[in-house]
Amino acid sequence: MSGTFISFEGPDGAGKTSALNTITAQIQPLLGDRLTITREPGGNPISESIRAIILDRANTAMDYRTEALLYAAARRQHLAQTILPALAADKLVLCDRYVDSSVAYQGAGRQIGEAAVARMNEFATDGLLPDLTIYFDVPAAVGLKRIQAHRDPNKVDRLDVEQETFHDRVRAAYLRLQAAHPERIKLIDATQEPDQVVAQALVLIKQTAQRYF
Amino acid sequence: MSGTFISFEGPDGAGKTSALNTITAQIQPLLGDRLTITREPGGNPISESIRAIILDRANTAMDYRTEALLYAAARRQHLAQTILPALAADKLVLCDRYVDSSVAYQGAGRQIGEAAVARMNEFATDGLLPDLTIYFDVPAAVGLKRIQAHRDPNKVDRLDVEQETFHDRVRAAYLRLQAAHPERIKLIDATQEPDQVVAQALVLIKQTAQRYF
Repeated sequence: MSGTFISFEGPDGAGKTSALNTITAQIQPLLGDRLTITREPGGNPISESIRAIILDRANTAMDYRTEALLYAAARRQHLAQTILPALAADKLVLCDRYVDSSVAYQGAGRQIGEAAVARMNEFATDGLLPDLTIYFDVPAAVGLKRIQAHRDPNKVDRLDVEQETFHDRVRAAYLRLQAAHPERIKLIDATQEPDQVVAQALVLIKQTAQRYF
Repeated sequence: MSGTFISFEGPDGAGKTSALNTITAQIQPLLGDRLTITREPGGNPISESIRAIILDRANTAMDYRTEALLYAAARRQHLAQTILPALAADKLVLCDRYVDSSVAYQGAGRQIGEAAVARMNEFATDGLLPDLTIYFDVPAAVGLKRIQAHRDPNKVDRLDVEQETFHDRVRAAYLRLQAAHPERIKLIDATQEPDQVVAQALVLIKQTAQRYF
């Protein structure tokens, strides 16, 4: 691999996806086809089929470890079909969510255990970690309030039916990940105004991916 | 868990499934509802949906690690919905294929690595191994010849399109697993007559699950 791989992480409602959209609009004109923007499951038929099983509200009997394995399978296929080819073609890859999401959501949120989920995901990624992970930090209550304000109530899926304690565990896990991997994971206070958040994220991206700018 | 868990393993064409059918016919009248016969994916909707993705011949882009993760996800769900409840209800569980199949087929057959696949499956099973694994051993060439004689050519799926070298690697991995875990895994020479194979398997089952007989 010779490109640069940057992931965007954070609890629901942290604003990372809209930050990614704003950043894309700003840097796409500069980078052109040297830029790849992607998010899991990534649009390939296999990952989309897997994601459909996870999100099917009829699947109430789904075991939490099954769910974690399915996320890892969809991640692996997205990596194989989108991220690895882009990195091999020397592109800058910005990806909305990657392994840290599973450690936080399945490991801590679902209480499977962060170390066990991280180890299992090493199989999925064959050890490939981003060069930089931007973690958009908000308290669970703030994130949830933002989601409730923006969501189409007709599009609520199985995963939305979670409690604030779940999101507290997710955020705590992200903070532990950041503390454990300070070189890779950089925290942005996402309770700030969106413009400030985007500006800080752009500084981090340009530091890591300098040669593209 | 308080029941007894026995898995049947072997390369394609080893005859383990027909041996399991014969054994079931013989012991079902004795054990009644204290016996649970099952095979992955096990008939639950989630595992069946996962298996459908694996076997879809349109999914030619499937990465081998994705495939291994999907098998592990289907296994986890089968464990959660069928095997664990049966063991909790003190049943004797005979299961056609379990983790050793993934170590042999994905680890060695697909050359992902046996240790990596075993470790990832520890996440899926949370460490639960059978009390006894009966390994039906045949050389790859013998197994493949039996399959070709018995299969409906209209029902060939993506996994059948493999070479003899693949099946040689699978068998070699099974033999390594047996050598590494001689207490759990017992080998039967499955080139013998079916009656002899069944008789030897029954001796092993009765040794391990004595209190059911």
